[in-house]
Amino acid sequence: MQNFDKHNLSELVGKHLVYTYDNGWNYEIYVKNSTTMDYRIHSGIVGNRWVKDQQVYIVQVAKAVFKISWTEPTGTDVSLIINLEDKIFHGTIFFPRWVINNPEKTVCFQNDHIAQMQAYRDAGPAYPTEVIDEFATITFIRDCGENREDIINCPASELPADFPQNLSAN
Amino acid sequence: MQNFDKHNLSELVGKHLVYTYDNGWNYEIYVKNSTTMDYRIHSGIVGNRWVKDQQVYIVQVAKAVFKISWTEPTGTDVSLIINLEDKIFHGTIFFPRWVINNPEKTVCFQNDHIAQMQAYRDAGPAYPTEVIDEFATITFIRDCGENREDIINCPASELPADFPQNLSAN
Repeated sequence: MQNFDKHNLSELVGKHLVYTYDNGWNYEIYVKNSTTMDYRIHSGIVGNRWVKDQQVYIVQVAKAVFKISWTEPTGTDVSLIINLEDKIFHGTIFFPRWVINNPEKTVCFQNDHIAQMQAYRDAGPAYPTEVIDEFATITFIRDCGENREDIINCPASELPADFPQNLSAN
Repeated sequence: MQNFDKHNLSELVGKHLVYTYDNGWNYEIYVKNSTTMDYRIHSGIVGNRWVKDQQVYIVQVAKAVFKISWTEPTGTDVSLIINLEDKIFHGTIFFPRWVINNPEKTVCFQNDHIAQMQAYRDAGPAYPTEVIDEFATITFIRDCGENREDIINCPASELPADFPQNLSAN
């Protein structure tokens, strides 16, 4: 029986996570509030890309298990599962073909280049879609509270060498 | 701690479910095996569409909680969560713009029209993507075992009026 409220996101909102997909790609997210996320990519085909204020859909699908879904200005669709109870992370990323062909086009601080991303998106080719469906290992997690701008505020390349060990617990 | 095997799909494979999204759309799936699904749409903007042998990615993300993800010949991306423990269902559907503009183009037995679907997909417009992110109520569930062709084998319009009450428990 349900012993949780599907629409109560308080256990997830404010969380800052670093995780590594089983394919080796290292990612970082900050759940800024119940509809907004910041993220930064450390490695993988779009390593060094970073984004603030991505609008997302978040729901609780089991006790302490959250689903975060969104579509990007690049046309990429994403659906993540974060199981805080068991510390399990799983991501499904639907990449348009042009991102796979030329991933470097998306490597930037996206907020400064939204129109350019949409232009690339519309130029395509969009298909065939490349599906990445991978578990990830959570390597760092802390609770930062909501609506902070200092959590993700530079590209991965500008972080100290000891990131994320350099971070405080909150 | 984990008390389940992420890659053990036996609790889900063979399941036949009917469910209604909170927006009123009535859907049906049969998890034919660990990489294949059949589905049939009863109502909503693409009501009466049906598909056999869609290739899917399935994983277990929490105990008895499964994630099924796939991309379609139409360019539609989907990621479902089926929480068998709590009987909770959640779907995220990323529709290309042309499906929203002309949903009737996809209403068919898709297997007979794959090239046509891909031609529509490539003609677009693909963007902006329409995201449907909804919980659903599971109204019928049974275990049919794997690889049956008699579970979903006609459009919704040809089903008896008392479907799914007419079905046996397996």
